[in-house]
Amino acid sequence: MGLASAALWGNRCSSEKVQKQDTSDGFLKLGMASYTFREFSLEEAISMTKRLDLETISLKSFHLPLESTEQEIKEAAEKVRASGLALYGCGVIYMSSKEEVERAFQYARAAGVKVIIGVPNHDLLGFVEEKVKEFDIKLAIHNHGPTDKLYPTPGSAYERIKGLDRRVGICLDIGHTQRAGVDPSEAAEMYKDRLLDVHIKDVTQADAEGTTVEIGRGVIDIPRFLKTLLAIHYQGCAALEFEKDGKDPLPGAAESIGFIKGVISAIQII
Amino acid sequence: MGLASAALWGNRCSSEKVQKQDTSDGFLKLGMASYTFREFSLEEAISMTKRLDLETISLKSFHLPLESTEQEIKEAAEKVRASGLALYGCGVIYMSSKEEVERAFQYARAAGVKVIIGVPNHDLLGFVEEKVKEFDIKLAIHNHGPTDKLYPTPGSAYERIKGLDRRVGICLDIGHTQRAGVDPSEAAEMYKDRLLDVHIKDVTQADAEGTTVEIGRGVIDIPRFLKTLLAIHYQGCAALEFEKDGKDPLPGAAESIGFIKGVISAIQII
Repeated sequence: MGLASAALWGNRCSSEKVQKQDTSDGFLKLGMASYTFREFSLEEAISMTKRLDLETISLKSFHLPLESTEQEIKEAAEKVRASGLALYGCGVIYMSSKEEVERAFQYARAAGVKVIIGVPNHDLLGFVEEKVKEFDIKLAIHNHGPTDKLYPTPGSAYERIKGLDRRVGICLDIGHTQRAGVDPSEAAEMYKDRLLDVHIKDVTQADAEGTTVEIGRGVIDIPRFLKTLLAIHYQGCAALEFEKDGKDPLPGAAESIGFIKGVISAIQII
Repeated sequence: MGLASAALWGNRCSSEKVQKQDTSDGFLKLGMASYTFREFSLEEAISMTKRLDLETISLKSFHLPLESTEQEIKEAAEKVRASGLALYGCGVIYMSSKEEVERAFQYARAAGVKVIIGVPNHDLLGFVEEKVKEFDIKLAIHNHGPTDKLYPTPGSAYERIKGLDRRVGICLDIGHTQRAGVDPSEAAEMYKDRLLDVHIKDVTQADAEGTTVEIGRGVIDIPRFLKTLLAIHYQGCAALEFEKDGKDPLPGAAESIGFIKGVISAIQII
């Protein structure tokens, strides 16, 4: 492959660049959801993300505590950016009160990200919409599979937000989608107008018992899913969230990223 | 993907099964060249190969010293097989005398492998052919790039062995092939009748300065190469030889294996 296909996973996911992205250029942006490195420090998470040749990351609270002061948040965000990585998002953040919604948006603004991956209680969605408008920061609702009482499927989130400001959308977690018996490619196509973020992964089986496995070893049709993202001109990131091997995630994360890049490389030449 | 494409990289590379392989089934067998784990013990090499979900390996002398007794060789081979891995080959073994050729074949027989990846001096090729017939063990000549005085390219090996017994063939090292300015896909097609083993890898540039890099990050057209192997119904192994990060090779090896599997998975569906 080389330069041409490398461009297909161009890392143009920094908050500014996402806004300017041409919708028809066929790029797919690969990133890291820092939950993958939850057993490690922020510095280690940065280092491993860079070793995987990714250039963008979203931070989970392990690496950027929700209780941080504005100064602490800015310092952590600066540490990410000084490493050469873009910081495109934060989350998953659960929100069960207005105070938690307000805090999440203040936190995201301090970090300089343009998308919060979040799980607001249903009765807070109106308030979330107000905050999206006030801060001009997107909120992508994360689906968490068959045992999730709030948003088990992307469709269950979509139904509740489809009438809201378009900056309220979905973070499509394809593992939990498949575990809920929903086809991730069909979901991406169906909810493409609200697709703001993607957690990419693979799972061992298509039901509640399914657990994360290296991408390519599980049941999700990854080539079809990636073709769908390209076909719908998806402009967000596809961030790897690798939940397996928490104490030693790098090999499995690397295999997963390699698989994605291999698929994209092959799609391009065929 | 799942079961169907998993079959494309079926690990049917044990010496017996290679012999029986149907030439038209579209399988590609992925393995590990243990040189990748040269800084580690045999036990660690086995463990990391299994973690990558490969099922077959060829052993370099680091893990099976050439000076070993027959009993030691048998014990090491048994250790590999007891782990669940197949042991399909050994090498790269350099041979500059008849004694070294003889020793290599004795060693391979003791290990129970059916292919030696080797570099015999030119004047030993007649003797190598005798031994191939005597032991019924194949010898695959390994090309080592522009600075190699014996076999810089696969073609330089092919020209010298094309008149010999068909069990004398080539181990196509695609990194060194590309470094020598030869297209690996064209070489695979051109020498397919003598293609006995493949060292799969990627390199930073297509000249003598090129060094190994994670597959997908370099200049080799991996999708085209894998399509070629499938098209010519290649029956040997494609063994990853990852020369980078000797003290910590697993992440890069994992990314490389993931890339290969991703390409194959995508080729299958398109």
